[in-house]
Formats: sequence, structure tokens, C-alpha cells
Amino acid sequence: MDRYDIAIIGTGPAGISAAITARVRNKNIILIGSRELSTKIEKASLINNYPGIPAVSGEQLKEAFLKHIGSMGIEITEDKINAVYSLGNYFVLQGQNGSYEADSVILAAGLSNVNAYPGEEEYLGQGVSYCVTCDAAFYRGKSAAVIAFSDKEEAEAKFLAEIAEKVTYIKMYKDSNGVEGTFAGIKNIEVLSAVKPVGIKKNGMKVILETQAGGSYEFDGIFVMREHVAPKTLVPGLKTEENKVLVQRDMSTNIKGLFACGDITGAPYQYVKAAGEGNVAALSAVAYLAK
Amino acid sequence: MDRYDIAIIGTGPAGISAAITARVRNKNIILIGSRELSTKIEKASLINNYPGIPAVSGEQLKEAFLKHIGSMGIEITEDKINAVYSLGNYFVLQGQNGSYEADSVILAAGLSNVNAYPGEEEYLGQGVSYCVTCDAAFYRGKSAAVIAFSDKEEAEAKFLAEIAEKVTYIKMYKDSNGVEGTFAGIKNIEVLSAVKPVGIKKNGMKVILETQAGGSYEFDGIFVMREHVAPKTLVPGLKTEENKVLVQRDMSTNIKGLFACGDITGAPYQYVKAAGEGNVAALSAVAYLAK
Repeated sequence: MDRYDIAIIGTGPAGISAAITARVRNKNIILIGSRELSTKIEKASLINNYPGIPAVSGEQLKEAFLKHIGSMGIEITEDKINAVYSLGNYFVLQGQNGSYEADSVILAAGLSNVNAYPGEEEYLGQGVSYCVTCDAAFYRGKSAAVIAFSDKEEAEAKFLAEIAEKVTYIKMYKDSNGVEGTFAGIKNIEVLSAVKPVGIKKNGMKVILETQAGGSYEFDGIFVMREHVAPKTLVPGLKTEENKVLVQRDMSTNIKGLFACGDITGAPYQYVKAAGEGNVAALSAVAYLAK
Repeated sequence: MDRYDIAIIGTGPAGISAAITARVRNKNIILIGSRELSTKIEKASLINNYPGIPAVSGEQLKEAFLKHIGSMGIEITEDKINAVYSLGNYFVLQGQNGSYEADSVILAAGLSNVNAYPGEEEYLGQGVSYCVTCDAAFYRGKSAAVIAFSDKEEAEAKFLAEIAEKVTYIKMYKDSNGVEGTFAGIKNIEVLSAVKPVGIKKNGMKVILETQAGGSYEFDGIFVMREHVAPKTLVPGLKTEENKVLVQRDMSTNIKGLFACGDITGAPYQYVKAAGEGNVAALSAVAYLAK
């Protein structure tokens, strides 16, 4: 496996800025996220306070960022990272599409306003999973739920339904495209739209999903497919406060070699603040690598 | 006197960014510095890592910043601030050209790598001054030295020579324009080019300038005219470390209502880091004003 100098997780302004500065410093980097950059950027109607680019739309700023990284030959590896493990001298990143190794990591994964369900972290790897690609094989001939926070998970559920006997699709987002159409003809997917999970328990080999209405569902496995993973779930041992990663002024975290920047470090949630922090995180990672 | 919501000192990327965000938040601001922005920006040959504006020259980035503030109707008040006094609920800023009042202050005055001469701070206001316009009148018929770190001080010295009996101009910069030409016909200005001051002492009413060569000069007053004033000299009581202002993650300093951003807060000395911090400082000042 290639070992990168710096793995950068997230393609918002913080991750883009970190990638640019790391590349200027000739580091071997991997930039992991969405080629659409950040949905928050794209949806911003007018940004007035990104100095040097007045009165710009989110879409225009996104294009400017893409052009900038393109001009430097920086590519985006399309993936979602589910876990980052510090192994002393290096890190292993577990993504939906594969694993990556790096000597240092910059976490620029954006704002996470989610809290794990009670029991979710406790049973992670014991019936709870964040990655269909990784763990679908465990559910051959069994039942599994997909708690889906975006329509991207529809493809995951379809893949899972090829292996599992039954898939319960718990839809947590507003349905724009018509999920029933997507699943038309797939008999072993059941869609639940009005269920609000509140916790996960275990009963022997089974996992129990408890709901706000008071009822519960039993499965062999539960896939919790959030758009963002809570930082401390993403990186075991990472110090956080109210879901924000605690950083020093040099963007270092409590984990040696791991830096964080942008919205994941807390307010204000601003483009140029995130870009500035990405720059600092990259230079701190460069200094760390030099040691 | 007008009382501003926020006075921003410095027109580099940090000050510009703070001004833009403060204006977006509808604050009544004064932005004080040079209309040439920052000499560091202007002299940069190629900036690669300001996200969204790839491969830009310092001159181009300066133009982009000027255009941005121009489009928002933000003007630069050309002045150099010599002292900032916290008066509990508001601040008074003492500049070369006048005084200003503000409810909060953002210090974005750039990197200060100067240390005050031994004795300089001790005798400030007792023979040592930072402002010819303010204090020239005290030296009518007396002798005064101007320790000048840029050719901007030549005009100050000429003004002083109209009042003082004798002006000793201690030139600390490389002479590009020919200072003797500037002072041609002015009989009471003496230029010293090879003198390196190392300390200031007092002898009765006189101030003594000690030099590296071991000699000393006696004057009624000494004007120390640096391009940057050391932060703790600029703001009495401000906590610094090695000439850098100590700030929290929200850019607050130890003085209530006073925020700092950009190079004055320490490394890395980078455009987008400074711009990001300016944004955070402005939003923190806005939050402070709301209280």
C-alpha cells in the first residue's frame, strides 16, 4: 500500500487549503472527499467576506477552488472515511472504497452536528457498522437495517440487498427523487420513513433498534450511514468537546501527527477561517514530518 | 470625537479580512494603516497557496484586496498608531495624525521583530517619544534626535527642524533617494548614518543615546520612529511572548475588547492564515459588542 506523507480528509475550504499548502511544500498527499467539494459551499448563495474574491456565489468559489487545485495537479480521491487509526508512527484510514496509509493526517471533514445513538459506539463491529462495502458479506442470508441520512445510501442498500435476505431501509432524509422508484422491483428492501431511532441494544447475536415511538426492531446488523461521522467515532481516542475537535493554535490535536481544521474545530463556520486553518494545519503537519 | 464600534489597526490580509467581515455585520468601523496595504504583500513575487486565487503576485493580490474593500465602501484611514489605551468600556488610539475612539480594537499590525532599546519604554513620555506631530512643540529651541527606520521619517525630521534648534537624524535604513538632498538647505539637521543605538539613559533633564561603538550623544529628546511598534509598547498591559501577542482561538487577548490577528500573533506568516484570523477576530469583536 502506498504510504502518503499527509492524508487530508475533507474537501471543503479547509481541506482544499491544506492540500494546496502541503503540495507547495512538496509533500506526497492524498486528498479524500467529494469531487463536489462541500455541499455547504455549493449551496451558499452569496459570499461577501472571502478577501480578494468579492460577492462570489458558492458555486463560483467551488469552481475557483477546483481550478486552483487542478492547476497544481492535486486530485480528489472520492471516498468517505469511516475510521482513522493511529498506529504510533503512522495512520490507517478506513474508507468505503478502500484503506489508506499516511504518516500524518489532517481532519477537515466539516461540521458534525450528530451524536451517536446510545449503544452505537459500544456495538460498533458487533452488529453495528458504518460501511456496507466493508461488512455486507457478514449478512449473507440475514437481516440488516440501513439508517440512511442521504439518498447516496440508496445504492448501498441495493448492494446490500444482493447479499442479505432482508434489508430495512430507514429513511432519515427528505425524499426528493422517490426512493420507492429507486428500489422498484427489489422485493427484499422495506422502506420505513416515519421511524426515529433513539438507541441500539443487543440481545444475544441480534441488535435491537429502539424508536422514539416506543417500539423496537430486531436485526442481525445495523448500518448507520450518516453524512458525517462524529469526530470521536471517526478517530478513537480523539479529544472533543460538544462534537468539536479540540485543537491548539497550530491545529494539533491530542493525537500526535493528527491535525484538524475548519468547521470540525468549531465556530465561526466561515470559508476564510477554514481556509486559514487548513494552511496552518498543513504547515504544522510539514513540521511534524520533519522531526 | 466619533466613537467607532471597531477600530482595526493594520491593512495587511488580517486587517482587510477583519474589516470586510465587520462591514458585512454592519459595524461602524475605522480601518487604519497604509493605502499601500502591506509592504510584505506588495513585495511577494508569487503566492501559490491563497485558495481560489492561484499563482498570484503580491501586487495582484493587493489589487484584489483593494477592489474588494472598494466594492464595499470601506476606506483606509492613512495613519500610524503609536499607542492604544484601554479605558474600561472603550479604547483611545493615539495616531500620528490624530486620536480615535472605539468600543473594540482589532490589532492586525503585522510582524514586529523589533525590541525596544533598553531604557526606551522607561523614559517614554520623559524625553522619549514616538510621534513628532504630537510632541515637537516640547523641543522649541532645544535639541532632538530622530532615530529613523524608513524614509517616511524625513518629512517628520523637516517638520521638527522648524521648531527645534537642532535635529540629529540617525538613519537606520538604506538610503535610496539621498537623504542629504531631502535636507538640502536645512542647516539645523545633522545626518548620522553609521551610528547604531544600543540604549537610552537619562541624565537630569537630558536623554543620553548610547551607541554600539561605545560613544554616547546627549539630547533634550529622542524620537524613536520604527515602522512597527512592539505590541506591548503599543498596548500597555498586553500579554506577549517574544513580541507575539498571546491570543485564544477566538483571537481574544488578555485585554477585554481587544483582539489580535495575523502575523502579530505569530507564525506561520501566511496570507490565508492572516485572512482567516482576521475573520475570526471580527466575529469575536461583533460578539463582544453584542454583550
